[in-house]
Amino acid sequence: MSPSPSLHGFSLVAGDRGAPGGKTFRAVNPAGGAALAPDFHEASPEEADRALERAHAATATFARTAGETRATLLEAIAAGIEELGETLIARAAAETGLPVARLTGERARTCGQLRLFAQLVREGSWVDARLDPALPERKPLPRPDVRRMLRPVGPVVVFGSSNFPLAFSTAGGDTASALAAGCPVVVKAHRAHPGTAELVAGTVARAVAAQGLPPGVFSQVHGEGATLGVRLVRHPSTAAVGFTGSQAAGRALHDAAAARPRPIPVFAEMSSLNPVFLLPGALRGRGAEIAAGLLASFTLGVGQFCTKPGLVFAVRGEANEAFLEALAKGVRAAPCGTMLTPGIRAAFLANQQRLLDATGVTLWAGGAGEPAVERHEARPVVARTTAESFLAHPELAEEAFGPFTLVVEAKDAAGLAACAGVLAGQLTATLHGTPEDLAGAATLRQLLEERAGRLVLNGFPTGVEVCPAMHHGGPYPATTDSRFTSVGTAAILRFARPVCYQGFPDALLPAALQDANPLGLLRVVEGRPTREPLTPRRTG
Amino acid sequence: MSPSPSLHGFSLVAGDRGAPGGKTFRAVNPAGGAALAPDFHEASPEEADRALERAHAATATFARTAGETRATLLEAIAAGIEELGETLIARAAAETGLPVARLTGERARTCGQLRLFAQLVREGSWVDARLDPALPERKPLPRPDVRRMLRPVGPVVVFGSSNFPLAFSTAGGDTASALAAGCPVVVKAHRAHPGTAELVAGTVARAVAAQGLPPGVFSQVHGEGATLGVRLVRHPSTAAVGFTGSQAAGRALHDAAAARPRPIPVFAEMSSLNPVFLLPGALRGRGAEIAAGLLASFTLGVGQFCTKPGLVFAVRGEANEAFLEALAKGVRAAPCGTMLTPGIRAAFLANQQRLLDATGVTLWAGGAGEPAVERHEARPVVARTTAESFLAHPELAEEAFGPFTLVVEAKDAAGLAACAGVLAGQLTATLHGTPEDLAGAATLRQLLEERAGRLVLNGFPTGVEVCPAMHHGGPYPATTDSRFTSVGTAAILRFARPVCYQGFPDALLPAALQDANPLGLLRVVEGRPTREPLTPRRTG
Repeated sequence: MSPSPSLHGFSLVAGDRGAPGGKTFRAVNPAGGAALAPDFHEASPEEADRALERAHAATATFARTAGETRATLLEAIAAGIEELGETLIARAAAETGLPVARLTGERARTCGQLRLFAQLVREGSWVDARLDPALPERKPLPRPDVRRMLRPVGPVVVFGSSNFPLAFSTAGGDTASALAAGCPVVVKAHRAHPGTAELVAGTVARAVAAQGLPPGVFSQVHGEGATLGVRLVRHPSTAAVGFTGSQAAGRALHDAAAARPRPIPVFAEMSSLNPVFLLPGALRGRGAEIAAGLLASFTLGVGQFCTKPGLVFAVRGEANEAFLEALAKGVRAAPCGTMLTPGIRAAFLANQQRLLDATGVTLWAGGAGEPAVERHEARPVVARTTAESFLAHPELAEEAFGPFTLVVEAKDAAGLAACAGVLAGQLTATLHGTPEDLAGAATLRQLLEERAGRLVLNGFPTGVEVCPAMHHGGPYPATTDSRFTSVGTAAILRFARPVCYQGFPDALLPAALQDANPLGLLRVVEGRPTREPLTPRRTG
Repeated sequence: MSPSPSLHGFSLVAGDRGAPGGKTFRAVNPAGGAALAPDFHEASPEEADRALERAHAATATFARTAGETRATLLEAIAAGIEELGETLIARAAAETGLPVARLTGERARTCGQLRLFAQLVREGSWVDARLDPALPERKPLPRPDVRRMLRPVGPVVVFGSSNFPLAFSTAGGDTASALAAGCPVVVKAHRAHPGTAELVAGTVARAVAAQGLPPGVFSQVHGEGATLGVRLVRHPSTAAVGFTGSQAAGRALHDAAAARPRPIPVFAEMSSLNPVFLLPGALRGRGAEIAAGLLASFTLGVGQFCTKPGLVFAVRGEANEAFLEALAKGVRAAPCGTMLTPGIRAAFLANQQRLLDATGVTLWAGGAGEPAVERHEARPVVARTTAESFLAHPELAEEAFGPFTLVVEAKDAAGLAACAGVLAGQLTATLHGTPEDLAGAATLRQLLEERAGRLVLNGFPTGVEVCPAMHHGGPYPATTDSRFTSVGTAAILRFARPVCYQGFPDALLPAALQDANPLGLLRVVEGRPTREPLTPRRTG
């Protein structure tokens, strides 16, 4: 099958194709090294600005849409992505080197996310409607009628990520949650998979048009993050930013947003070592099983998950030696894999080498095969060091994005806690322990809770469930704002702000706040959650 | 009555008095100009650091307290403030020049806020507990048990504000909501009312001790905002900042926090013109009533409220002339008032003069009396200009914090909308209109909704109700983060972040997330709100 004969190679600005004239680039098949047709045209600064001006112009109309309209939009996008069928999967596979099975699963997750947000906004209670009706007789002063709900913040800039060409790119979680909230979206497509981005963007634009929404609700531009991306973040119409990628790039966007005349929030999910702590009882009882699980987790997707466990802490001794032997055996049999881009592979090899060269670090085991350079392969590697070295060398806690993990051996439980105490913010932290292990590890658990967004017990951090209780976020540098998640229904809260209506008659209130509760929402009335209408009818 | 014979004049660092040796200052009675005993000693940099180190050391213990413990703490603080009785009111009156009646009302609000947060955390559902129990049989992959709830972020630095010596200072809304969330607090006392701050801080520290909590839960330091305050914001242990004050100071704190190696959120409530739009039908029918309400609102507290209406927009014509005549008549009879500090008065006079000197602005009416310089008085002033001048001179939309308002006359409804379209972010925006006026003003309403945190209909923005539905916040520069409020129960959400627990047995989960729902919280189980326990018992 030809990967995608119909690609045009242009940005999509409020339904219109971008113009030629600027620089062009091609996607590269990392598994074969071939540059893929067609040429992609970088958006001009004017096109980027126009995308945001059109988004701004669409803001009021889109903000006023009913939840049902936005639910239908999200479902139409999901259906459209499915209708792209093998064309999309083949192009994504060619651009990323990811296996078809993985991409098929990621597509299901992407469409599932879109439908989850559709369900959320169709039901509607996410707006957190609160009503405190007037108390005209209250002394010493009457209480006015006060009601509030969440409203969309305005245009959101979304950066496609390299490692999730579908689930965290053009119509991924950031876009889905922003559209669900009622915010127009401008996507900066990732340069590693522009064709995938174009296919999905066409689908989104068609769904926007089919709903009769202004085309400014969605645009996608191609270009460099450091120039075009920063320009988008600085544009006065931009109200918020969603980003998944490296710490350096995320921090640069955060800093650009904070330095604006009107600062805006950047939700950057950036960097996490996802430490795993193996307590002695668990190691004794399940060492081989843990080794197998860890191997699967740190090599999943060639180690290119934000939740990849990059640090493993254990108490030295016989059980840990057995665990390490089992892990080494597994690693030696593990295949090499193609990384997402030549740049990611180069960074991985450099970071891995830096860690292997560090004082006190030794290579423990590597995959047997020789990584094929022309396929941009990397092989899985485990290194080991001591807690003493780890504590003396903070650079050992820097991420190597790829199939590498570092096992840190402590003398005792106090050594484990000392290591936990120096960790920076993490998306996840994992503990393996028997009930007895865990009962004796209260300090360690507390230290990890202070540092992580998600604590995993006797499991592995990869595999992020998309559900209301999920939190995919964490203290800096895991993200730039630990109060928000980029996965799960709560992700919509990034793109909404409360608006309070005081003294409004029913007819001028949004439906969510009207007396009769016409949308049937769960609302908080005088501090009590209820789906009942407001009675008796308020005065004032 | 002697204002406060027992003041010691020192910072309070985790229960210990600060040391002498640094610079000292005295509060000044703005109504009399007298410097008030005793000398107040600025905290040394080491004392500021120690306050945060002790706060950090107390974080884990305080975070683990039950909601009941924190509720009792907040109630004890409220009771302690009431027990200070006239000593507190007299000192606050001497330091601020605010009338006793106003301060008595503010004390009631302060204690009411503390008790409202006590009620919130005693009930407990604010933690937004979400449970998605394991689905071990799910295909293709089992779902792990995933639960999340809000947990405290860590030490919060609170800046006392000049215009609310009780309700937004030492034990004001920021402190109350941070303590309610389980975060230790370090207050930077405002230099205008250090004695009031000391009295309240002593009460808080006694309540902390009485609850058996670590003294690091609360500290208060005296010093300069630009040096000591910024040092507190930059301290590595600080997790979040609450501030109410000027745009320049708030922005400086925001920028310092954003530039940290680990950026932290600053919730600064800074600057708002609180525009009021008078539509023609309302002016015709209620012009005199609106004039009286506006006069009361813009002169309340000598114009020193963050919700003071500083801009009034109306369509020129007969009804507006009648309104302006009524307003002028009222203003001419309005008394001068003592401003909070000599600095605030000087800034007000300069800003007012700048506005009066601006092209196209004319003085319309001023209070009759001559302001007494030795009492730091200001007199109420109304100026008028045209929409054309307003649109041509953006500096006319800069705040003059004090009893001044500018009436802007437009030719027609389109002129009103044009003015609304250039407004920056506001805490509030107000509309006066008949049902017919409002039906024809959809564009104007939309423009105001995009720019304000609270929309007031046929009322006035001063008087911020403390209730669940209140939102006291707004787009920049009203605040640095429009998604959060500093008044009302939702203020607690500034100081908490979600933590997710995956695969945890009941015994290791916080009570809020345990199967049996021992706290009786309203929780979201598989997306559905319920107070029921989780049954059947989850596997995994």
